[in-house]
Amino acid sequence: MRAVDIIRIKRDGNELNAEQIAEFIQAATHGSWPEYQLSAMLMALFLRGMSATETASLTRAMTHSGRTIDLSDIPGPKVDKHSTGGVGDKTSLILAPLAAACGVIVPMMSGRGLGHTGGTLDKLESIPGFRVDLSIDEFRESLRIVGMAMIGQTSDVAPADRVLYRLRDVTATVESLPLITASILSKKLSEGISGLVLDVKCGRGASMKTRKAAGELAESLVRISQANGLKTEAVITPMDAPTGRAVGNSLEVIESIETLKGRGPKNLEDLSVNLAARMVRLAGLAVDDAEAERQVRTVLASGTGLEKFRQCVARQGGDPRIVDDYSLLQPKLPNVIVRAPRPGYVTVMDAEKIGIAAGVLGAGRQRSEDGVDHAVGVLLDVKLGNQVAVDDAIYTVLYRDESKLPTALRLLNESLEFGDSPPSEEPLVYEVIR
Amino acid sequence: MRAVDIIRIKRDGNELNAEQIAEFIQAATHGSWPEYQLSAMLMALFLRGMSATETASLTRAMTHSGRTIDLSDIPGPKVDKHSTGGVGDKTSLILAPLAAACGVIVPMMSGRGLGHTGGTLDKLESIPGFRVDLSIDEFRESLRIVGMAMIGQTSDVAPADRVLYRLRDVTATVESLPLITASILSKKLSEGISGLVLDVKCGRGASMKTRKAAGELAESLVRISQANGLKTEAVITPMDAPTGRAVGNSLEVIESIETLKGRGPKNLEDLSVNLAARMVRLAGLAVDDAEAERQVRTVLASGTGLEKFRQCVARQGGDPRIVDDYSLLQPKLPNVIVRAPRPGYVTVMDAEKIGIAAGVLGAGRQRSEDGVDHAVGVLLDVKLGNQVAVDDAIYTVLYRDESKLPTALRLLNESLEFGDSPPSEEPLVYEVIR
Repeated sequence: MRAVDIIRIKRDGNELNAEQIAEFIQAATHGSWPEYQLSAMLMALFLRGMSATETASLTRAMTHSGRTIDLSDIPGPKVDKHSTGGVGDKTSLILAPLAAACGVIVPMMSGRGLGHTGGTLDKLESIPGFRVDLSIDEFRESLRIVGMAMIGQTSDVAPADRVLYRLRDVTATVESLPLITASILSKKLSEGISGLVLDVKCGRGASMKTRKAAGELAESLVRISQANGLKTEAVITPMDAPTGRAVGNSLEVIESIETLKGRGPKNLEDLSVNLAARMVRLAGLAVDDAEAERQVRTVLASGTGLEKFRQCVARQGGDPRIVDDYSLLQPKLPNVIVRAPRPGYVTVMDAEKIGIAAGVLGAGRQRSEDGVDHAVGVLLDVKLGNQVAVDDAIYTVLYRDESKLPTALRLLNESLEFGDSPPSEEPLVYEVIR
Repeated sequence: MRAVDIIRIKRDGNELNAEQIAEFIQAATHGSWPEYQLSAMLMALFLRGMSATETASLTRAMTHSGRTIDLSDIPGPKVDKHSTGGVGDKTSLILAPLAAACGVIVPMMSGRGLGHTGGTLDKLESIPGFRVDLSIDEFRESLRIVGMAMIGQTSDVAPADRVLYRLRDVTATVESLPLITASILSKKLSEGISGLVLDVKCGRGASMKTRKAAGELAESLVRISQANGLKTEAVITPMDAPTGRAVGNSLEVIESIETLKGRGPKNLEDLSVNLAARMVRLAGLAVDDAEAERQVRTVLASGTGLEKFRQCVARQGGDPRIVDDYSLLQPKLPNVIVRAPRPGYVTVMDAEKIGIAAGVLGAGRQRSEDGVDHAVGVLLDVKLGNQVAVDDAIYTVLYRDESKLPTALRLLNESLEFGDSPPSEEPLVYEVIR
């Protein structure tokens, strides 16, 4: 079928069949449609929307645009987690070893940070020697021996997504539910997993600012993932303030290790345990949420989760001594303190502004080709809802380039609001969609 | 403003201002937006539509993307006619000399045929020596001396339209009222005219198949043309059967000359006079339609219109003897006759099928870069509504390449329907929009 005829079907608001969608995705992958036809199609998809059937076909076609991994020869249930991205969200580093310690095989493929959000790969690479670019054979070997592996998406995973994402970014077709759904799930489906836990972030620091938007995305992700044969559930979780108290790559690794040692911030520990327990239950290793959570709490308390993390670091070429000696991870950097300008309760710690401030210091990147500084970042000295006096420390800012400080400090000051009464407490999870 | 931000405004259904539209058109003209952004914008424009204000801005921006001609130093009112395209529609060749003979300056820039419709330039080029590629100086000189000139659009007229049309053709964004409106009018506005008569064709042989679609286009064209300062009126006219009895380039020139001699088919003569009279009235040379029509009928009856045509041919390098000796225009070609398979009234002579048949014979082109055969074509031996007996001649087919005949004859047979009672007579004009 000619490209123009496929575009016309969607332009007119009609449903595309699986063959037509596959043709579009094949064309994106192999360059057989010029980009002006791909982008006209993307705008038609954006404005006309896609049915659940179409979105499932799109996801499948994008998955099969590249390499898919078959893990059926590795014994055990394979379950992964995906987060839509936030600030200070290092739960992957905690829940993966916890779930693996419970017997789940965790074949985690992650991305890098962009804009104000961090990325698991950047955090892992702050560990000296850690390789996120394992070959597929090394990846399989890690799964077999350690039960978990954390790597980057190789360029042969869902290549259509890369082509389309680049076009969407410059043609105002990013914020489309079916396109976002297919983009996320096509990469997860190529991992060879049978279950998936989705953490849809909602709030100031998330791409979904409202409960309604987050709910629609979660619903779409769960339905389409299930339609493609994955056991899936999604939680919608708050992302108004950062998760935990560390924002910055090596700072977050340290906080993750502390959490695996049972000394992490409560909200980070609870969220990590909650998500790990869902993975354990989806893996069929527990009969219900309560039983799953008991198992996860047990491996956390016993240190088995921490050992799994240490094994993973060693297996992927990292220095396992970092687990006990953070000075191998984090150089001494100069710091400045942001202090409370007035007494009262901390009612807002805007995750987006904090994320941008960390990015300005060098912890994040504006363009995907930029590098990051692993050591700089922001530590939250108080948490949302704490009562403070004038001049109490709110943030500790670790920096390397002094010229970046004024912008970062302005953003951090802007990120704060104070009130005379404490804000209502954030729930751990707003909603579960399964 | 960044391209992606301008696209986003229209994507979200908001109104673009004149500067944003001008930026888009400048970018199309100079290639400063990549084609994938232009096409995303076209799809957003197609699906979100444009207000009258936006369409007027688009038209103006497209006009000023290229050369505009200033004819203010040539005395007399300048009025042109534009038809949306039909089969056998040679009224331009008749009304231009008639209007010019009444004192209207007619600076006509036309296009070539494409698909099943014919084009004025192809018809004119069947006249030996006739040049449609006059320089602007030669064009002005013709207008000054003859009062009319018929040329092609030079490549520096509305170049943005060419860029966008090529993209629209391959991205399913052709059938958009504002885009069609701007495409037509941007070229007419660059001619330096003060008045414009629009003949919006409606029916089987037209791009607008229904009265509703034709009415919307006519309304849009008139409003936007007036908003850009032109005195404008549109007529909606039937295009179910061809206009006149000749379909094919030189055949249509001969029929036009016959009409200027007062011997043409009545529907062709009446439509040409009607449109010419509107031009005369818009030019301010007559107080009302009746007075304008009297003037046109006078120059038709006196032969002044024919003389104007002869002058125009001579001025543009053509052999004026063709007016008296059609053998200089039309070589002898073999012919076959399509005959009535049953007795009855001819209730349908499908202009689209006849146009395609003529195109198959070589009279038209499928791609804009193809050439045409000026001599081949189809003559209608009866007109719509005539009563016929079995084996009466319906069409005379003039051909050159015998291998094309079977397809052409199949189409011509398919173009016909017969009934036991005559069809209701077509009006000359369905509706006038002013």
